[in-house]
Amino acid sequence: MAETGRNDSINNGGVDSKPTEHGCMSELTPGPVLSTIGSPADLRRFPVEALGAVCADIRDFLIRSLSDNPGHFASSMGAVELTVALHYVFNTPYDRIVWDVGHQAYGHKLLTGRWRRFHTNRKFGGLSGFPNPAESEYDTFMAGHASNSISAALGMAVATELNAESPRRNVVAVIGDASISGGLAFEGINNAANTPNNLLIILNDNDMSIDPNVGSLHSYLAHITTSRGYNDMRYSVYRTLRKLNLVSDRRKGAIMRFNNSLKSLLSREQNIFEGLNIRYFGPIDGHDMGTLVKVLNDVKDMKGPRILHVKTKKGKGFRPAELDPATWHAPGRFNPETGELRCQGTDGAPKAPKFQEVMGHTLTELAGKNPKIVGITAAMPSGTSINIFKEAYPSRVFDVGISEEHAVTFAGGLAKEGLRPFVAIYSSFLQRAYDQIIHDVATMRLPVTFCIDRAGLVGEDGVTHHGVFDMAYMRTVPGVTVASPRDEIALRNLLYTAQASDCGPFAIRYPRGAGKNPNWRVEPRLMEVGRGEKLCDGNDIAVLSIGPICSEVQDAIASVHGLSAAHYDMVFVRPIDESILKEVAEKGCPVVTVEDGTVNGGLGTAVMEWMSVHGYSPRIFRVGIPDRFIAQGSVAQLRSLCGMDAASIARVIQDAVSSVASVRANTIQSAES
Amino acid sequence: MAETGRNDSINNGGVDSKPTEHGCMSELTPGPVLSTIGSPADLRRFPVEALGAVCADIRDFLIRSLSDNPGHFASSMGAVELTVALHYVFNTPYDRIVWDVGHQAYGHKLLTGRWRRFHTNRKFGGLSGFPNPAESEYDTFMAGHASNSISAALGMAVATELNAESPRRNVVAVIGDASISGGLAFEGINNAANTPNNLLIILNDNDMSIDPNVGSLHSYLAHITTSRGYNDMRYSVYRTLRKLNLVSDRRKGAIMRFNNSLKSLLSREQNIFEGLNIRYFGPIDGHDMGTLVKVLNDVKDMKGPRILHVKTKKGKGFRPAELDPATWHAPGRFNPETGELRCQGTDGAPKAPKFQEVMGHTLTELAGKNPKIVGITAAMPSGTSINIFKEAYPSRVFDVGISEEHAVTFAGGLAKEGLRPFVAIYSSFLQRAYDQIIHDVATMRLPVTFCIDRAGLVGEDGVTHHGVFDMAYMRTVPGVTVASPRDEIALRNLLYTAQASDCGPFAIRYPRGAGKNPNWRVEPRLMEVGRGEKLCDGNDIAVLSIGPICSEVQDAIASVHGLSAAHYDMVFVRPIDESILKEVAEKGCPVVTVEDGTVNGGLGTAVMEWMSVHGYSPRIFRVGIPDRFIAQGSVAQLRSLCGMDAASIARVIQDAVSSVASVRANTIQSAES
Repeated sequence: MAETGRNDSINNGGVDSKPTEHGCMSELTPGPVLSTIGSPADLRRFPVEALGAVCADIRDFLIRSLSDNPGHFASSMGAVELTVALHYVFNTPYDRIVWDVGHQAYGHKLLTGRWRRFHTNRKFGGLSGFPNPAESEYDTFMAGHASNSISAALGMAVATELNAESPRRNVVAVIGDASISGGLAFEGINNAANTPNNLLIILNDNDMSIDPNVGSLHSYLAHITTSRGYNDMRYSVYRTLRKLNLVSDRRKGAIMRFNNSLKSLLSREQNIFEGLNIRYFGPIDGHDMGTLVKVLNDVKDMKGPRILHVKTKKGKGFRPAELDPATWHAPGRFNPETGELRCQGTDGAPKAPKFQEVMGHTLTELAGKNPKIVGITAAMPSGTSINIFKEAYPSRVFDVGISEEHAVTFAGGLAKEGLRPFVAIYSSFLQRAYDQIIHDVATMRLPVTFCIDRAGLVGEDGVTHHGVFDMAYMRTVPGVTVASPRDEIALRNLLYTAQASDCGPFAIRYPRGAGKNPNWRVEPRLMEVGRGEKLCDGNDIAVLSIGPICSEVQDAIASVHGLSAAHYDMVFVRPIDESILKEVAEKGCPVVTVEDGTVNGGLGTAVMEWMSVHGYSPRIFRVGIPDRFIAQGSVAQLRSLCGMDAASIARVIQDAVSSVASVRANTIQSAES
Repeated sequence: MAETGRNDSINNGGVDSKPTEHGCMSELTPGPVLSTIGSPADLRRFPVEALGAVCADIRDFLIRSLSDNPGHFASSMGAVELTVALHYVFNTPYDRIVWDVGHQAYGHKLLTGRWRRFHTNRKFGGLSGFPNPAESEYDTFMAGHASNSISAALGMAVATELNAESPRRNVVAVIGDASISGGLAFEGINNAANTPNNLLIILNDNDMSIDPNVGSLHSYLAHITTSRGYNDMRYSVYRTLRKLNLVSDRRKGAIMRFNNSLKSLLSREQNIFEGLNIRYFGPIDGHDMGTLVKVLNDVKDMKGPRILHVKTKKGKGFRPAELDPATWHAPGRFNPETGELRCQGTDGAPKAPKFQEVMGHTLTELAGKNPKIVGITAAMPSGTSINIFKEAYPSRVFDVGISEEHAVTFAGGLAKEGLRPFVAIYSSFLQRAYDQIIHDVATMRLPVTFCIDRAGLVGEDGVTHHGVFDMAYMRTVPGVTVASPRDEIALRNLLYTAQASDCGPFAIRYPRGAGKNPNWRVEPRLMEVGRGEKLCDGNDIAVLSIGPICSEVQDAIASVHGLSAAHYDMVFVRPIDESILKEVAEKGCPVVTVEDGTVNGGLGTAVMEWMSVHGYSPRIFRVGIPDRFIAQGSVAQLRSLCGMDAASIARVIQDAVSSVASVRANTIQSAES
């Protein structure tokens, strides 16, 4: 897909947002200008000359706030002038601004009545890290997955025509140069030109994705700057003619002819957007407030779809971030004076690595022995740690940019020619490639391995980023193996198994963040596909878990006294280990399933199906992400909220045992009576 | 998504490929030239001058064959010269040709050893209507859903480099002008330019989708012709310089500089593909064999990605099809001499309309009363019958082209502004918008109605087109209502209910083809969301069905004598009717669920889940599409194959009753002993 929620884990000092810290962070006092702005209406009362001071206050506030409460820093810093200019020129919230990336929208949050709550950004019960309509009428659309702004804004722009809104309602999509390369954005542009609408697309071009940008469109955008003289001239001529009433915005045809003839006159290259019939303006300096306000005012009421190309600098206004915008995309805590990044706290003991790092290192080891292994990522080489593989074997790893659909079909092509592609994509973003998984991989039973990163609750990135659905949808696609390791060593074994076996598409899901085992680098071994593992035996209850949530189950079992509990790590949700299910069924005890995925359709459902099909009827209690959308918070808080932490699981176990015991008692009673 | 499998129902005379007809169609004798071609190697022994005769034989064969055994006619007729030239110039199957659309690939099937079996095209046990690697080594990739060829071929082209194939293996993607507008194709192009590869993309531009093509890229392609003189000149200059060794394909940089300087020299507009860094050649006449062979030979061994733009005429060589290519996309049976279309057989009785037509007419009626209703289709206005709505209210229906992702996000934007979008997309193509359904609709609980067309087994279009997964994946997305009508009147009621109620996203799935009720135009009424209907009562067995497969259940029940069967139409798979489930559970009899969707995750699974969660344990037997990919055939044949026809359902009912009876008998026996 395309996301731009592209949430490289924010480096929060290695601390997974300890519950004790929440709510303790105190409200910050903004600078003298920002403190007078309760809504954009206040902003619009300022003279243009005062807007620089607003920007300064926003930057100061962002630096102070994010140095303490980590978030997406560099993108929002780069978009400060653009954000202020947009709310200044457009009549928000009546006019609609659709942000493509939450990353750039922190300034927007501060200007729209939320600076008082900004210290709760990304926290449980606090502000969402991305625009979210449930939070504010200024947040016009969900903005967690990239490349959707043009399509959504086009819908709004068309609606404003159909609804015959008066006065005219302007709709603006603000999309980054990485997001615009996603297929969805292209489909939006392609459709915008031949639908009656007045959509304004702002291309916020900071020449950066989280990782360096890739793709030919990106090269094209860089090249476009060279024709700045032409564009400047064209724009000046346009303004002059407009003042003289020689061109009219009312008649689109006239404008188009004007553009064409001017082009001929100047004998310059055709712009790619105008080739697609979207009027193009720019590039302009996105940090020059005077220009921004002037140009926005000029293009604001024009008819028809148009694109304004704005060049900005990621991290603008904070020197360390300007110099190293990749690190400062989401830098974690830092010293607001010096820019020194706060180190991860360490107690001297060896630390367990992130699952991502285990994946990256293990895949690199395997690739050293198996020349058929190749790696693919969709704009997240560092987030997925597949960059470790790329450093070792540069020609065998492909970063295809924000293009999850292409990533999967491309992998299908590679696999069709005998290679073993490993596609590392975040769970919530892989949703964009659902059809490609079916059509371009599974129907041909191609040996593509999906390294489903950020599976399960991801924490602070919230509702759009939790990896909820992968087990539920992967499990219903014929022939796909779906597995999840409980720890680092199991992850290594599964990666080894995926490249060594011949069982078609293979999905391995693992969560964001670190496991618990610092001694993970043992020789990987072949696992039997579809075989789980009994971790402990018992007769009062059987707990079936999959993935690293295993440790919560272990803690739960340890905390429940006087019960004899069996615990199985299923490892595979498909094919499911039928021998374990049979063993459990014949125990006759209640069953608890535990998974870090939707409770509706995943492991628990698979167990219920198997029991029903095979004529067993144990009581089954499912623990997992409930059937609703879950907001942000620390993983620990959200597990507690969802009843997936050790304490909740312990309660489920106890309730299961007692409810079944009471049923038994009743049955015996009624049999006796 | 983008498909190009875009299978408007082929008009097969109103007859749903009666089983009796299969296998009866006899093998055709090809003309004298084609009859000597067992494989492309035979073709390559001909002199260029003989290729015209090959094309004539292919066209003659296609006309005779498809006039009797309906299929996709016009696209394949238009691609005959291109197909012959490709297999002539390239060393297939060592070189790879990746077809984007099965529609154009019939000639390819004839040339690759399959003319003897072509009378079985699209039939049960016969040839697939689309390229399918399971069928032939010449079919390099699955080609049912559009826009995937560039990504898949890029994977192959990169693999050939990594595998260091020698001699060089050429890879060619052949994509239509409608398919290339899909987001996936754009992602592929965007990635092709900055990955080392020698991919050749052939743009087969016939200026037509099934329905007239839309989108700005399409306008752009039409416009490109005007610069033909320029391209011709550029190509000639290139050839000359190459002969003189003044340019070298080995050094990509040199070529690029050459291109740029030539452009400056000629002061012409920049080509959009070259803007994206793909070398562009064309447009050339796709029916001029001499030119095709010459140009293909010239571009064949060039280095780097390049695109050859070929203009063809849909239906070429059969006058009626050239004049009306839309009708002749898939014309059904026709007179091969006169082009007269064979009329639908009618017995004089009023006919039941297609579900599609009921949708189109009903939506139009509703739109007349509710000004908030708008319609969206992704390149299938006639296939979905949403063109009926468009004819009545042209400004309220949007054909966004092959862009399912955009279609859904666009609908989200419309809904966010208070409109009521109805998105009509085929089930298998809606898979492309899975993430958009979640992120851009469901998270905001927007009132978008999904009219999921071609749900369930679709028949002759086969494996890539069956609407298998929609209930399974829709059911796990929080807050989405998922319904299916058993007949035309229920479809009307559901459409009415969707626009009248306030329950967020609403999915209505219905199959391809006609229902059974000619008197469907009764006033639609509000249905209670989540409420099913008891059709008949009984105590030996309870059958729960959803959708029009209801009639198979009714036939099954009627055929089973001596049993008291209850039958419920669930109508909604989510929210599921709990009062029915409770009633059924308390009967204590076995339960059979019947659905025209994957048995793994749909209605049957939902029933198992509910029973398990609520502590009931009836024996449940699920009837539905099994957990494997299903090939083509008539719907009747496939229902029989999948055990979903009345006879199979009757057997399941009987087996369920007897197995439960025998368990009871055993239980009683063991209790007595």
